Amino acid sequence: MKIVFLGSGNVATHMASALKMLGHEVVEVYSRKYENAQALAVKIGAQPIDRIDCVSSLADLYVFSVKDDVLAEVIAKMPHSNGIWVHTAGSVPMSVFSAYVRNYGVIYPLQTFSKQKEVCFSDVPLFLEGSSVEIICRLEELANELSNSVHCLSGQKRAVLHLAAVFASNFANHMYSLAGQIVAEEGVPFDVLRPLIAETTAKAMELTPWEAQTGPAVRGDQKVMKAHMELLKSPEMKELYALVSESIYNFSPQ
Amino acid sequence: MKIVFLGSGNVATHMASALKMLGHEVVEVYSRKYENAQALAVKIGAQPIDRIDCVSSLADLYVFSVKDDVLAEVIAKMPHSNGIWVHTAGSVPMSVFSAYVRNYGVIYPLQTFSKQKEVCFSDVPLFLEGSSVEIICRLEELANELSNSVHCLSGQKRAVLHLAAVFASNFANHMYSLAGQIVAEEGVPFDVLRPLIAETTAKAMELTPWEAQTGPAVRGDQKVMKAHMELLKSPEMKELYALVSESIYNFSPQ
Repeated sequence: MKIVFLGSGNVATHMASALKMLGHEVVEVYSRKYENAQALAVKIGAQPIDRIDCVSSLADLYVFSVKDDVLAEVIAKMPHSNGIWVHTAGSVPMSVFSAYVRNYGVIYPLQTFSKQKEVCFSDVPLFLEGSSVEIICRLEELANELSNSVHCLSGQKRAVLHLAAVFASNFANHMYSLAGQIVAEEGVPFDVLRPLIAETTAKAMELTPWEAQTGPAVRGDQKVMKAHMELLKSPEMKELYALVSESIYNFSPQ
Repeated sequence: MKIVFLGSGNVATHMASALKMLGHEVVEVYSRKYENAQALAVKIGAQPIDRIDCVSSLADLYVFSVKDDVLAEVIAKMPHSNGIWVHTAGSVPMSVFSAYVRNYGVIYPLQTFSKQKEVCFSDVPLFLEGSSVEIICRLEELANELSNSVHCLSGQKRAVLHLAAVFASNFANHMYSLAGQIVAEEGVPFDVLRPLIAETTAKAMELTPWEAQTGPAVRGDQKVMKAHMELLKSPEMKELYALVSESIYNFSPQ
């Protein structure tokens, strides 16, 4: 397939590289900033481009992987083409394309991508939606090349999945950051927390997180929780500690 | 060393098993409930015991690994002995022993233990405190057999470390539970979140969590955050979403 990427961020970088490795031709990478387009384009032998009105109209697939809040604007400015237009966003409905093009869909990768870290794309669950059965089939064919975990999912369920991903990834990761901040204030390096973090995740994977839960909140150990609240200086951290502890104590798996 | 364990919970089970494997003799396991004492005792060839006044006074080391809120009570009821008394609690000062015994200390393992899951004890960071230099040396000798990561740490810093561990382990794990609950409501199994959870942790380990952060909160993507808030039904979840997102947005590493 001849493919154009609109966007050069984390998702675009990893997906474009994976498609290139599979033998697809990524012809152009568009970004508002030429340097950003170029940074990705050189990696995958594509043409960098910073003028959306000059994007080639001859590709088979256009992958829009820009921030959610500029997606509609980028789509509106795209020149007409006969290729399939897809985006990679969890929280944007597929209908964002409907006024502009006939064949469109979504390829949503449920993963966290950073440019500094390689990802094995074949393990990334991909969730598809398409404007017709034919388009779903074509996207499925491509997705099956990319990943061993391909699913069709409505836009409504995809939004919920994205919400869950924010909890499982961004929020969990932030708890690591806050823990790192707490030990740093005592001059203790983040490193001492690594075995704990690794084991917490290993347990959640081998068991389930609700079976694996330990600590003062699940035990209802008021004395420890009170002492912890007193150690926390910022009102925001105190509020967070109380709220998460209460949520742990009240949690019952379905 | 001849060792007695007071308590038969997660920490006691893993530490007693590790000590036994190293060739130490765990002579008795005390628990208020005989069945609990027995469950651990049979594994390690120890005597189960449910009467604290009958605990042997001839051991070299007494490891108190009971819930923080009953620790003082268990210590108060212990018969006199000449062995070293230690506890394994992050948030309890070493002075809890001072009225009862001369030689005492703390061995705090910074790890999350569940009975259903094996742990490689040699990777578990151990934080020590002792009533004298001599006791610290003796505990250090034992701890070095158990683990490759042994540190001396004051009780005050240990309490802060325990607080950080609650964030890094219990709170992060709870974010996985909440994510699991969110997808379960849509009939999607927890399994689809596993690659995301694994990668989030792998990134936090390879980079740091603050470098690795992604998602709408760190991007300040108000549109997505608003949509997510609308998807959440419970007021508690909405509050949690808003608070953690704000904390992510405002976070700056030291």
